[in-house]
Amino acid sequence: MQSPPLSCDRVFLSTVPSNEQSLAQALQQRRQRLAEQMDAPVLLWSGRSSARNFPANTYPFRASSHFLYFAGLPLDNVVIRLEAGRMELFMDDPTPSDRLWHGASFTRDRVAEQIGAAAAYPLYRLKSFAEGVATIPVQDAATRLQQSQLLNRMITPANALQGMDQELARAIVSLRLTHDAAAIGEMRQAAAVTVAAHRAGMQATRTAKTEAQIRAAMESVILSHNMTPAYSSIVTVHGEVLHNDRYHNPLQSGDLLLADVGAETELGWAADVTRTWPVSGQFSSTQRQIYEIVLAAHDVCIEKARSGVEYYDLHQMAATVMAAGLVDVGILRGRAEELVEQDAHTLFFPHGIGHLLGLDVHDMEDLGDLAGYEPGRHRSDRFGWCYLRLHRPLRPGMVVTIEPGFYQVPAILEDPDRRETYRDWVNWERLAEFADVRGIRIEDDVLITEAEPEVLTAALPTHPEAIEAWVSEI
Amino acid sequence: MQSPPLSCDRVFLSTVPSNEQSLAQALQQRRQRLAEQMDAPVLLWSGRSSARNFPANTYPFRASSHFLYFAGLPLDNVVIRLEAGRMELFMDDPTPSDRLWHGASFTRDRVAEQIGAAAAYPLYRLKSFAEGVATIPVQDAATRLQQSQLLNRMITPANALQGMDQELARAIVSLRLTHDAAAIGEMRQAAAVTVAAHRAGMQATRTAKTEAQIRAAMESVILSHNMTPAYSSIVTVHGEVLHNDRYHNPLQSGDLLLADVGAETELGWAADVTRTWPVSGQFSSTQRQIYEIVLAAHDVCIEKARSGVEYYDLHQMAATVMAAGLVDVGILRGRAEELVEQDAHTLFFPHGIGHLLGLDVHDMEDLGDLAGYEPGRHRSDRFGWCYLRLHRPLRPGMVVTIEPGFYQVPAILEDPDRRETYRDWVNWERLAEFADVRGIRIEDDVLITEAEPEVLTAALPTHPEAIEAWVSEI
Ligand SMILES: [Mn+2]
Ligand SMILES: [Mn+2]
Repeated sequence: MQSPPLSCDRVFLSTVPSNEQSLAQALQQRRQRLAEQMDAPVLLWSGRSSARNFPANTYPFRASSHFLYFAGLPLDNVVIRLEAGRMELFMDDPTPSDRLWHGASFTRDRVAEQIGAAAAYPLYRLKSFAEGVATIPVQDAATRLQQSQLLNRMITPANALQGMDQELARAIVSLRLTHDAAAIGEMRQAAAVTVAAHRAGMQATRTAKTEAQIRAAMESVILSHNMTPAYSSIVTVHGEVLHNDRYHNPLQSGDLLLADVGAETELGWAADVTRTWPVSGQFSSTQRQIYEIVLAAHDVCIEKARSGVEYYDLHQMAATVMAAGLVDVGILRGRAEELVEQDAHTLFFPHGIGHLLGLDVHDMEDLGDLAGYEPGRHRSDRFGWCYLRLHRPLRPGMVVTIEPGFYQVPAILEDPDRRETYRDWVNWERLAEFADVRGIRIEDDVLITEAEPEVLTAALPTHPEAIEAWVSEI
Repeated sequence: MQSPPLSCDRVFLSTVPSNEQSLAQALQQRRQRLAEQMDAPVLLWSGRSSARNFPANTYPFRASSHFLYFAGLPLDNVVIRLEAGRMELFMDDPTPSDRLWHGASFTRDRVAEQIGAAAAYPLYRLKSFAEGVATIPVQDAATRLQQSQLLNRMITPANALQGMDQELARAIVSLRLTHDAAAIGEMRQAAAVTVAAHRAGMQATRTAKTEAQIRAAMESVILSHNMTPAYSSIVTVHGEVLHNDRYHNPLQSGDLLLADVGAETELGWAADVTRTWPVSGQFSSTQRQIYEIVLAAHDVCIEKARSGVEYYDLHQMAATVMAAGLVDVGILRGRAEELVEQDAHTLFFPHGIGHLLGLDVHDMEDLGDLAGYEPGRHRSDRFGWCYLRLHRPLRPGMVVTIEPGFYQVPAILEDPDRRETYRDWVNWERLAEFADVRGIRIEDDVLITEAEPEVLTAALPTHPEAIEAWVSEI
């Protein structure tokens, strides 16, 4: 019930496949690239566990992603100092009590060797190395207080970073925006386990009676590979509740089940995948019509996603394809382009087409829009468009999600203002015939290249017949 | 990926079996009993989610146990005020954005009705109700800061509580030390699901290759019942690492697997159970000899546990039974009582015999030793004894764990001072023959009554033949 002990030699490094670029080399290259952009020295804290219901009963420790990017291992209460490509490690050796409760943990010197630190010191030495350094705030408040005290300035939530801290954030963004081979190797592993989890969820639907049972089947696959869910799984027959993270509903045969579940590797790299399938194993005619529309939007975005393409244009393309499809089935009236100009698609597709993926499921979102938005670009103030998390031209090595969706959200569709605004654009009677389509989303993880994008999660089917087969097969 | 929306009517209350005392009645009785001990008004915060790797990606929300005890429901960012048995609710109605992302959440008025609040206000009204109130610190730092600001005094970690806050803590301890029917009903449910999880873990051992796979099988049962693990599961072939919470080791046929896994109900009530079983399905002769010693200590404690008995005496009894058993097998030399006086048992049984169980797996440990230690009693400074978490006479309605264990902890057994001190008391050559016994613990949850204690987890076998049968059966 304490923070993770590190009881076995080199266990983390052994998780990296031998045919990938070695982690230690990758880490050294990342530090070297940072040095090319940052003259000031940098301190990065890994952070500490957060208490759940009492101090000794903590949530599972998650190291800061910025720390992980340069130091590689999910170490608790550790600090690294980076300057000119050289790394120094600050960490306390295990106490006798640590060794009693947590076993023969790593020593400072052994960790230093593993992550390629040039020197290693106990934590109390930090203050003599803190002059003129830049940093990034961690998520846990106790460590953030230490950061402020050591650097003698307020280390605030990161989207208000100032001065050299902001310079550091920009440098880190420029590195983490595109992924090296070691990172992609990790993300392939997360994707593969996530595909297996979704397959298990589909198969569990044949006997499950509740959302909780499907969730259990899916997360069990993730845990059995010694990974963790990268975010609170969404597994629900009420997909119209966009951030639903409860699992108490029973499954009924006419329901669609929406599962947004992704694994994170032990070193912290994420997958983020959504599938929507019929509980009965067969889409109804109305469900299938809408599913095909969402799938068309998904497919066109993936087809067009490549280096140089504006992600914003993919969002607009998805909106237009969805609007055209909804016109075809008689729910919307008018021309697709005009409907999108009027934001009519946001009645059913209120969120963005996706986001960056990496060490964070919304990669670097702790830095606000510094990662997601090209310098000089800002969030729209229009409903729907304002939720777009990425507004940059795509570049090789970026990994993004593509996740169009269709939802009947009561807070949107029952809003009197919107019903008035879109009175003539929506065929409300026709819409009523689609009552069994509460929420559909199809989400994949896409690696951008110069040519065809590579769908890291391509092993999981998207076509409705294939979905039906996976749900139904014995 | 946000905090839990409360999207369905009365879903929490529906989890309480209809033949139990109704939750609303139980909550009212608890508030009435508090009023009998506290004249000052009381504010209790539920707390808020803690960020994992970025602010929107939070850990699953866990409400403060003190809040749950009086308000019942795991509500995020809610405050209750208690005075003379009357409860007022402070909570904000869902915003339009909440309704978009989280669905048609509970409204303030509906929550007030469900938990029996006499009046309900938005959160900004709190400051006009804060005069002269006592409180208990929550675990998340952001809410604790709000507590300090509102009450205009430092709300510090709870084991340093002063003045009326300490008076409140003492009153809450006196209530929560013994459990009412609603609480026991919840704990029975947690225990039943935990038993099923352990059974699944034993059965998964037949095919599993890694600790992670056993953990997945066990936690999957917990999740499938829409419960959560009450603490970081320990599932390891290195049981001698007492707080091991990694799962990377492969299983080998001569290994013992130690699994300390417990469920927590949706309303927050915990179970805490450990079993140790042979990976092969058959204990070796050495493993079985030690297992029988630990089991004898376990059984004698449960047999003796009843109202009026000092829990400390159970600890001592377990130590004595273990010492006698270790003499019998030739590992220790001397008389059991004398060995315990010399603390020789702590070489192999360094922790306490157990602890209080309730809304927290170590119940009320956020209050330091205020709950665990009878007024005027304090932790021993002797190794081993100092880890005893409960030092009170048992009373009907208490739920405690009984969890003796035997471990070969290198940090203890390789310590030169100890080897010198116990040179003549330990037969080190004989001990070496037990190298395949790294860690064994047997832990059950016991409800104290006037007569025979009730083992809430009795459905899970402890006897070695039964364990072998559960692991081996097809
Ligand atoms: Mn996503
Ligand atoms: Mn315990």
